[in-house]
Amino acid sequence: MQLRIPGPTPVPDSILKSMTKQMIDHRGPEFVEMLNKVTDTLKKIYQTKGDIFLLTGSGTGGMEAAVVNTLSPGDKVLVVSNGAFGDRFGNIAQAFGAQVERLNLEWGKAVDPQQVRQALSKDGGIKAVLVTHNETSTGITNDLGAISAVVREYDKVLIVDAISSLGAIDLPTDKWGCDIVVTGSQKSWMTPPGLAMVSVSERAWKANAQAKMPRFYWDFSKAKKFLEKGQTPWTPAVSTIYALAKALEIFEKEGLNNIVARHVRVGTKAREGVKSLGLSLYADENYASNTVTAINVPEGVDAKKLLKILREEYNTVLSGGQQKLDGKIFRIGHLGYVNERDIDITLKSIKAALPKARMAG
Amino acid sequence: MQLRIPGPTPVPDSILKSMTKQMIDHRGPEFVEMLNKVTDTLKKIYQTKGDIFLLTGSGTGGMEAAVVNTLSPGDKVLVVSNGAFGDRFGNIAQAFGAQVERLNLEWGKAVDPQQVRQALSKDGGIKAVLVTHNETSTGITNDLGAISAVVREYDKVLIVDAISSLGAIDLPTDKWGCDIVVTGSQKSWMTPPGLAMVSVSERAWKANAQAKMPRFYWDFSKAKKFLEKGQTPWTPAVSTIYALAKALEIFEKEGLNNIVARHVRVGTKAREGVKSLGLSLYADENYASNTVTAINVPEGVDAKKLLKILREEYNTVLSGGQQKLDGKIFRIGHLGYVNERDIDITLKSIKAALPKARMAG
Repeated sequence: MQLRIPGPTPVPDSILKSMTKQMIDHRGPEFVEMLNKVTDTLKKIYQTKGDIFLLTGSGTGGMEAAVVNTLSPGDKVLVVSNGAFGDRFGNIAQAFGAQVERLNLEWGKAVDPQQVRQALSKDGGIKAVLVTHNETSTGITNDLGAISAVVREYDKVLIVDAISSLGAIDLPTDKWGCDIVVTGSQKSWMTPPGLAMVSVSERAWKANAQAKMPRFYWDFSKAKKFLEKGQTPWTPAVSTIYALAKALEIFEKEGLNNIVARHVRVGTKAREGVKSLGLSLYADENYASNTVTAINVPEGVDAKKLLKILREEYNTVLSGGQQKLDGKIFRIGHLGYVNERDIDITLKSIKAALPKARMAG
Repeated sequence: MQLRIPGPTPVPDSILKSMTKQMIDHRGPEFVEMLNKVTDTLKKIYQTKGDIFLLTGSGTGGMEAAVVNTLSPGDKVLVVSNGAFGDRFGNIAQAFGAQVERLNLEWGKAVDPQQVRQALSKDGGIKAVLVTHNETSTGITNDLGAISAVVREYDKVLIVDAISSLGAIDLPTDKWGCDIVVTGSQKSWMTPPGLAMVSVSERAWKANAQAKMPRFYWDFSKAKKFLEKGQTPWTPAVSTIYALAKALEIFEKEGLNNIVARHVRVGTKAREGVKSLGLSLYADENYASNTVTAINVPEGVDAKKLLKILREEYNTVLSGGQQKLDGKIFRIGHLGYVNERDIDITLKSIKAALPKARMAG
């Protein structure tokens, strides 16, 4: 099976096997050692001296945690969105009573940092900026370096959804001044879903001290108190942490630079290959994501039929389009446990399946 | 290693092995089939015709979900507490703005349903009752049948923390009229931590339609919408669901009545054994839990030293006391994958370790 969706991503056998380890006491010394080691390694990949917490939940849980730990109801936030996940970030902030100013930009194009600047200069009351690093729904990687520079200039709290970027695309958290950065275990981390990871800067802690949105399960101050003794406030997903611990060993062996370079190669290969099949890319190629490629469904092809044929006849699982892109694009996920050979196989399957997916008539 | 804490509980090898299965698309047909099957089997054990949702999170996340899906800020709730987890339920409701009336009863004793009746008859403004079925911190099983009868009489929404009871202690959800019942995968379910399961009654849905507490990740209406197509709104903990699916096969083979009877035998054996060692039980034996036994630390014994010796010299991991019981009790967890032989081994270890844990002087 070629599972080439943007998460859950394939998990190497050695990591799957790590989950056959028996349960341990999450208040005992063995757990403390594991959690501290995982946290320390994550800090290197995040490139941060800030805090890192493992939260038992999905990436969306991590996004909710970022919001409720930083803001108060009525706080004005700028949500920069050019896709479904940017929209989701705004919906979360809204659900918890933030005053959400949405900078809704064109899907498939990168965010122009100048538009962020304009929005911030126009409205001094904005407290935080919520931004998606890699927009999984469209296959765009926003220029977070440039966006963060603008946000730093205006001294706002910067909350980043890096769920499908971190660990595959370079994100120097401290250098760029990102205050909260959220990722999820089932993306580049080669680990099953069930854990969200978040970094928390000094500036985020200052916001946290003022933040009045209700929180209990996601409360960072509880997480910090428990992490000081190498624990989590609530029973953590022990097996998934076994998997993440093993994955981080593999990460350290390959090295972050090599991992990022591999994703560049794989992403480039996917885009070149797609074009060589006569297909067109949905996203602006100058900002094309190296973790997910979105492809326009060619005229006369039924997207659902294509995905079904790929799944049933070619053992290849790809993703469709979300929301307004449903039926219009399909997506190849290429993050985590992936190499150029995987892309070759996927492209071959697409090439063979396409003619069969033509609509009748 | 004898892991005898009240969760995470030991996981049988066949269940651990089920987690070596490769990832699948959580929007694909294989996942749909698995989730529907798990949900249907859970309904039998819950003894409910209501909805059941799998939430990626710990049991505490499930408790938070129950609260925020049912209540509005300012709603008055009665929190019946006779231990640390009852207190936690109140703290969650309070964090989200409920007006919390705490019926704080003696720890180590069962809740007297008459006191619940008094509290409800005194204050007609109470909207919901939050109660702990099995108080893990003290080793008491409250008489939920009798308590629920009172709550039904007053027609309040009944939210039950059954995290350390359901699947080991009988809890006929519909018969008792429990509106939301929360449990966690790492307890009687022989599954690693990372999933909370909740049932939702018609009455709970009516409350949900009025409930204004902010929610996004835990939102039951989103969960229901996605469950209709056999999915979850957010990427679920796929591997942990593999484990739960396998565990439920084992559940079905043994049968709920046999499982409950086994826990009665194991619980009885633990209590008798503890007493035969000259130790005394912390909890009222008439309501002693069949999933966890709390034991008074005998005079002259250092609890921390006892647990350390048990862990390091006898490969036996037990739990200490929580909060005000720290240093005063220790606890044996006996739920899930446990039989009488396990209790024998544990008791033998305690007997051998006790003299070594006497304080100097």
